[in-house]
Amino acid sequence: MTIRYRTFLGDSKNFIENYTTSLEFDRKLAKYAAMVMLAHVKALEGGGYIPKDYVQSIVNELVDVIKTDGEKIYKWIEERKMRFEDIFEAIESYLYDRVDGGAGYIALGRSRNDHVAAVLRLYARDALHIILSNLIDLRKALLEKASEYRNTIFPFFTHQQLAQCGSAALYFLSYEHTLSVSWRHLTHLHDMLSENPLGSGAAAGTMVPLDIGVLSRYLCFNQEVLPPYYATGSRQFLLLMTFGIVSILSELSRMAEDLLFINSVIPYAIEFPVEHIATSSIMPHKRNLVTLEIARAKISNIVGLHNSMISIYKSIPYGYNLDLQEMNRIFMDIINSATATIEIFTDVIRGIRIDENRILKYVEDKPCWSSDVVEYIAMKKSRPVREVYYQIAKQLKNCSQNGEALSKILLGVGIQPNNIWNLIRNKPVEVYIKKMIEGAWRVLEEDKKLVRDILESIEGCRVELISGSNKV
Amino acid sequence: MTIRYRTFLGDSKNFIENYTTSLEFDRKLAKYAAMVMLAHVKALEGGGYIPKDYVQSIVNELVDVIKTDGEKIYKWIEERKMRFEDIFEAIESYLYDRVDGGAGYIALGRSRNDHVAAVLRLYARDALHIILSNLIDLRKALLEKASEYRNTIFPFFTHQQLAQCGSAALYFLSYEHTLSVSWRHLTHLHDMLSENPLGSGAAAGTMVPLDIGVLSRYLCFNQEVLPPYYATGSRQFLLLMTFGIVSILSELSRMAEDLLFINSVIPYAIEFPVEHIATSSIMPHKRNLVTLEIARAKISNIVGLHNSMISIYKSIPYGYNLDLQEMNRIFMDIINSATATIEIFTDVIRGIRIDENRILKYVEDKPCWSSDVVEYIAMKKSRPVREVYYQIAKQLKNCSQNGEALSKILLGVGIQPNNIWNLIRNKPVEVYIKKMIEGAWRVLEEDKKLVRDILESIEGCRVELISGSNKV
Amino acid sequence: MTIRYRTFLGDSKNFIENYTTSLEFDRKLAKYAAMVMLAHVKALEGGGYIPKDYVQSIVNELVDVIKTDGEKIYKWIEERKMRFEDIFEAIESYLYDRVDGGAGYIALGRSRNDHVAAVLRLYARDALHIILSNLIDLRKALLEKASEYRNTIFPFFTHQQLAQCGSAALYFLSYEHTLSVSWRHLTHLHDMLSENPLGSGAAAGTMVPLDIGVLSRYLCFNQEVLPPYYATGSRQFLLLMTFGIVSILSELSRMAEDLLFINSVIPYAIEFPVEHIATSSIMPHKRNLVTLEIARAKISNIVGLHNSMISIYKSIPYGYNLDLQEMNRIFMDIINSATATIEIFTDVIRGIRIDENRILKYVEDKPCWSSDVVEYIAMKKSRPVREVYYQIAKQLKNCSQNGEALSKILLGVGIQPNNIWNLIRNKPVEVYIKKMIEGAWRVLEEDKKLVRDILESIEGCRVELISGSNKV
Amino acid sequence: MTIRYRTFLGDSKNFIENYTTSLEFDRKLAKYAAMVMLAHVKALEGGGYIPKDYVQSIVNELVDVIKTDGEKIYKWIEERKMRFEDIFEAIESYLYDRVDGGAGYIALGRSRNDHVAAVLRLYARDALHIILSNLIDLRKALLEKASEYRNTIFPFFTHQQLAQCGSAALYFLSYEHTLSVSWRHLTHLHDMLSENPLGSGAAAGTMVPLDIGVLSRYLCFNQEVLPPYYATGSRQFLLLMTFGIVSILSELSRMAEDLLFINSVIPYAIEFPVEHIATSSIMPHKRNLVTLEIARAKISNIVGLHNSMISIYKSIPYGYNLDLQEMNRIFMDIINSATATIEIFTDVIRGIRIDENRILKYVEDKPCWSSDVVEYIAMKKSRPVREVYYQIAKQLKNCSQNGEALSKILLGVGIQPNNIWNLIRNKPVEVYIKKMIEGAWRVLEEDKKLVRDILESIEGCRVELISGSNKV
Repeated sequence: MTIRYRTFLGDSKNFIENYTTSLEFDRKLAKYAAMVMLAHVKALEGGGYIPKDYVQSIVNELVDVIKTDGEKIYKWIEERKMRFEDIFEAIESYLYDRVDGGAGYIALGRSRNDHVAAVLRLYARDALHIILSNLIDLRKALLEKASEYRNTIFPFFTHQQLAQCGSAALYFLSYEHTLSVSWRHLTHLHDMLSENPLGSGAAAGTMVPLDIGVLSRYLCFNQEVLPPYYATGSRQFLLLMTFGIVSILSELSRMAEDLLFINSVIPYAIEFPVEHIATSSIMPHKRNLVTLEIARAKISNIVGLHNSMISIYKSIPYGYNLDLQEMNRIFMDIINSATATIEIFTDVIRGIRIDENRILKYVEDKPCWSSDVVEYIAMKKSRPVREVYYQIAKQLKNCSQNGEALSKILLGVGIQPNNIWNLIRNKPVEVYIKKMIEGAWRVLEEDKKLVRDILESIEGCRVELISGSNKV
Repeated sequence: MTIRYRTFLGDSKNFIENYTTSLEFDRKLAKYAAMVMLAHVKALEGGGYIPKDYVQSIVNELVDVIKTDGEKIYKWIEERKMRFEDIFEAIESYLYDRVDGGAGYIALGRSRNDHVAAVLRLYARDALHIILSNLIDLRKALLEKASEYRNTIFPFFTHQQLAQCGSAALYFLSYEHTLSVSWRHLTHLHDMLSENPLGSGAAAGTMVPLDIGVLSRYLCFNQEVLPPYYATGSRQFLLLMTFGIVSILSELSRMAEDLLFINSVIPYAIEFPVEHIATSSIMPHKRNLVTLEIARAKISNIVGLHNSMISIYKSIPYGYNLDLQEMNRIFMDIINSATATIEIFTDVIRGIRIDENRILKYVEDKPCWSSDVVEYIAMKKSRPVREVYYQIAKQLKNCSQNGEALSKILLGVGIQPNNIWNLIRNKPVEVYIKKMIEGAWRVLEEDKKLVRDILESIEGCRVELISGSNKV
Repeated sequence: MTIRYRTFLGDSKNFIENYTTSLEFDRKLAKYAAMVMLAHVKALEGGGYIPKDYVQSIVNELVDVIKTDGEKIYKWIEERKMRFEDIFEAIESYLYDRVDGGAGYIALGRSRNDHVAAVLRLYARDALHIILSNLIDLRKALLEKASEYRNTIFPFFTHQQLAQCGSAALYFLSYEHTLSVSWRHLTHLHDMLSENPLGSGAAAGTMVPLDIGVLSRYLCFNQEVLPPYYATGSRQFLLLMTFGIVSILSELSRMAEDLLFINSVIPYAIEFPVEHIATSSIMPHKRNLVTLEIARAKISNIVGLHNSMISIYKSIPYGYNLDLQEMNRIFMDIINSATATIEIFTDVIRGIRIDENRILKYVEDKPCWSSDVVEYIAMKKSRPVREVYYQIAKQLKNCSQNGEALSKILLGVGIQPNNIWNLIRNKPVEVYIKKMIEGAWRVLEEDKKLVRDILESIEGCRVELISGSNKV
Repeated sequence: MTIRYRTFLGDSKNFIENYTTSLEFDRKLAKYAAMVMLAHVKALEGGGYIPKDYVQSIVNELVDVIKTDGEKIYKWIEERKMRFEDIFEAIESYLYDRVDGGAGYIALGRSRNDHVAAVLRLYARDALHIILSNLIDLRKALLEKASEYRNTIFPFFTHQQLAQCGSAALYFLSYEHTLSVSWRHLTHLHDMLSENPLGSGAAAGTMVPLDIGVLSRYLCFNQEVLPPYYATGSRQFLLLMTFGIVSILSELSRMAEDLLFINSVIPYAIEFPVEHIATSSIMPHKRNLVTLEIARAKISNIVGLHNSMISIYKSIPYGYNLDLQEMNRIFMDIINSATATIEIFTDVIRGIRIDENRILKYVEDKPCWSSDVVEYIAMKKSRPVREVYYQIAKQLKNCSQNGEALSKILLGVGIQPNNIWNLIRNKPVEVYIKKMIEGAWRVLEEDKKLVRDILESIEGCRVELISGSNKV
């Protein structure tokens, strides 16, 4: 395939080549492309499809490319001022240049289509584990805040209006829980990303009886043989992974909305780490949460990009189409933006401090306890809750019309105003907070272990692939 | 809450009420709303929060609503010419009307926010199982075709150009596999849809120590206590479910593209069931695959709807906002359209027949075996594959220029032209087809059992909820 | 075409027919379909392509369908329990049933493809004018509020933080202006919606030399002959119209965010019409702006629907594909939702009242005048603005640290605290408000006239089409 | 504002700064930022708000930045290893560094918010004109092909099935027309992009009575004073411009689908320029239209990006929020991708050649003339068209069953088979092609002139801004 460009270089037009080449954004895939090629060469060698003499130098070159994270090949490209369609063409060309004789054998039993399908899985799988790790950091930060503010009264809004008061721990636990749930959902993708598409040829399989077991062992792939049109044509694994990311980011976007909102409605109720705020020395009351604004926007952008991916994907026939190449670029952009965004949230959460006094001051004239008190009375007196409801509602209306303090109502139903927060702290869910936090920590530890185990096993494959290569 | 409307009916404006009410599309939720209320009433009774005397008649009314799938309540609404914000307001109002005295007690320990969160989970969980069942039908149809056309030569395209030939079984197995993978991913949502949000009040929990165990048992929910702001505010479960659906439909959309494409490129290669074709008696060569065109469009529509959901969701603070109500409507539209679309594909696949002769005729002048032959020679002669490649390429060029038959090339490398398909049928992946089909059937049977077991357990809860109700 | 279904009715399956028929949502197009057919019949008659004897009864039937807004035909369908693919098949079938002999002639020189293209333009054009009229109402409401609150101090936020204070008029003028600009942009679509696709056949033109001038005159279309593949295959006019609508709604969505935000941050600063608020008698501090929440969500939904349209559209080859039918349904949903949403905003704006005291109280401890004062001093003293900036910034910091009133700073630079609002009211843009309002009213009047003129001319065509029909 | 970063540099974290800075993608805005600042400085000078002595050196520096397209300032940043939030902070800091004394005055009467609003308009306006020019090239290419293939029979598809035959000119004219229509729609944005937001301060106007006339003259802006909250907070002009672009690209995406489709269905019917094809020497029948596949995908990506923009935009309150900064980046990405994509289409169209023989061969056994013949007979014999329809349909069925040539049918109705194309070429629309082409050329010339005139007037402003600057 290198041939085409080398031969016809004169015929081509730069703006057309620039339009279709993926070489620049393939940079992040270079290491994986070399890994897949290395596993392939070893499988060829195992099957006797390549003369032993050639193998070692090819292996050495590929190991170097892997160890330099692709740098070696991109330097070579730059020095030679060459142009390639993609990293696959570049690698084959590179091996022709560096290795005498053997390069002519390596195209056996493979195609760009099955190799790129394998490379994307490796890239996505590593990205998945980075995201899973980052999310564990964020969940940890949330749980720490839940412990720290276990008894701090916090406002809970519905319809952007104060609805109830409760412990701040419930706020942090809510987000930790939603992340925990989606975290688990994300992990299910590990299997899908470990399917082995090699041996699928361009669309309907290779002639060569490659040992799928060897290939899978070197790349930590499953042993199952895949239908080749699926293996080369489907990018469902990319879609499902972006879906998982978008789902998590949607929750985080709402957290950004919460924090921006509270920052406006009850200034200083939450103190944010200074690096995330743009203050104005001329308007000291301004505390713009710029990173959260950007985060909110970047998440919208990711949603759009994910939409681009579906739109590209759904309208092309099965099998490889070059449209899929654009999906790779978009997918990598999503991964970058998503990981940076999760880091921002972790840093924000770690650094926030809640000022309960500001909150208590804010809720002073707002009966955020009204529904609690209604239930309390109804239970205590065994009265129909609706009846109590109307009674308290009437009192609240009178209070408001006469400009009286809300404490009067509490006193009227036999609650000492300074006891209202204790009443709330004894609600079933509040009493349960300790257990919730403990349970969440327990799950978090299991989750950490799960990622650690997977990472170790992947590293094991990698070591075998690279080091074993010298012993062939 | 009914009060508001009854009292102020004069003040309201019809077009505003119409704008915000969900009563019409809540119709599909009515049964679930009654189920949740029924479980709630039983839990209240268990806790002694409602006088025993009232319980039986409330239970009877709710069981009736459940058994008529909500019809009973909607008839009542129509007869009374009443307007409600939503089904929750309607049910409470209905019970006030039908049951003396007791209705005043039922609002204890609940809010619309935790009830709607429970109702949506029940609705979504049932929808999930319907979709899982329908997908099993589709997968079954695909496997049947894979068996039926196990040895039928079929064209595999890349870039909308013929790339390789292989058994048609590989085509059907590819789609069955991708559906099988996403099927499994979908099932993971069952747990998330079985979380129990009851007891969460409006945002931060109820005062009433309801027995979560009782509630969960009646509704087949998990026992875990959820952070209430998550329980009432998150709709991550809806997003993840639409993501799963969109992912599956994206694959089906590509199948539609395949079939439309092949129908154009090799007319009659695939014979479609007549109900799916709009023929024109005046243009008998026209065979418009109208259902697949609609399917393609409906899937695009679902992608847009799912995008609507994310867009609504990501930009509102946590806790309940009425924006979430719009998501319900959209979600239900997606479910309807998705199930209808899956049915269409199942019916198409069941009915198609492949005409191998048309395909063989089509590929006659197209060397879809060229890469296979190159690999075959390279292996047989232990030559560098690139060298063989250039040799065959040159011969193909000559053939084309001299207008010679492709068979000449095959003969030139020692392959009897009528033997080329046997060569292909002996490719590793082709030989493996039998095992693939067997394996796929095995998985399918397990999957069927999985759904059956879940459905039985859900039915068990339902029976207990409804029938037990008479014995309270 | 009716034939197909009548003949093969036994062969068909209900769920497939339901999947592809557009008859239900064609209801809104029925009138236009009859109008186009009526113009067509007159053109046929003019060209001598249909015997005079038959014309009158066909015309009468079609006029009836038009006058009953399609009801007549839908009643007939219901009575006969017939099923049709779409309204075009229904109309032809209806005429066969009602009119002896003549119906066989009307299919000459037309196809469903050019007729539906004409019908959609008529529908969209009427919808455009309704939206333009509704927007004029909204702009009027905004201008009235601008006049009413010309001197009322209002908070202007950036980054959801108070940035400057100014007259409330500037708030209303900002939205009026953005609507005015997009209003003008929308009007440019009128020409595109008045292109005449008739005579284009299915894809490449009819054999029949229809008088395009007659057709255009009856339907208020332009005289230009269109390339038929464009005429039948392009739906660019639908895309551009939804684009225009989405653009306007995006601005309104931000207005909803403003109002929801101010309602939370400065309660009662804006008093909203009671019909748009869901208050809670138990939480009297809650004033949920439910219509604006729904509006925000519906706009997100429209964005998603519009995205569906593009996604459907961009991936099909030119010429008619049934995918386009789905676009019709989505387009009509967008129109309905958009017009209802604009009405909601108009009603909200008309009903709001601003309480300046609440605002002045809110800004009391926030120097929303700080940048104004800096500029004022810099100008007055001819000092570098940055120097003044640092001076005031330092004073603000001191003030804040010592807990002193902000008025001290004003006094320090020689401004009487009670004079600060006058200073602001004398800013160049504030002084200009009167002119802005006058200018905006002037434009509004011109715009009203423009719509009125267009509506009159369209009504003229309609009258000629319908009434003239009796005199043929 | 530079101060913040210089002072607190130690406190900041790199990953946070990288997350929020726009400096990198502001590169394309640098020139415009300098232009706006230059106009501002001149206006300040005109008003006597800055000592004359300082003006000249500031002006010189800004002119240099403009002339080097921003390079000068980015080099300076690199040399000093400085970090900035954005180009506006950088420019002010740069002037402090380069110009003694005067820089302290320039912040008067401006804010980042009104300046960025002006800069974006200038950038977008230039981009608009580039796109308009590129589209003129594409339209020209289409018209040339329409002339070249005015009498070449071409297949017109509906439902991806051959529907009618006609001159290829009609194909090219269809796309030229749709582009012509959207071209005109795009031009309407020129006015919106020429609104002058300067003087609007951060949100509610500046204290300084800047001469808006001077500012507008230097920047080719309109004279109208804008409501400042609109001026600084609205990005409707960006949305509408991307809408226009997306609309055009949607049509081009369909053209890509056409060409890919025809390339598959009737190989070699259209010969594509070699640079746009990836051939495979081993599969000489493969002619992958890779640039069109990428174009199709890039357009889907742009649709997603445009969706990102709406999603970001619609959910933030009015006034400046940093979310808007992300929109800038996305907008610039869209512009780049859109212009490259339009160029690709122009190059493809210019280079294609149609082989009529291949087409005639393809349609030989497909009665693409059937509807034309039906209409022809019906007219000639004054028979009901439905009657003729059934007659021909029956004959076609017989033909097909008996394997007879279609010519038999033509002969049966008195048409010489070799005369059928003449019959078609005499259809009304075919006869009209000459006029269509002439009309289209006429419009194209006017459009070219329109762009030329605008560009000249903009260049005039620029010259005055830059050169006049030396004479101050």
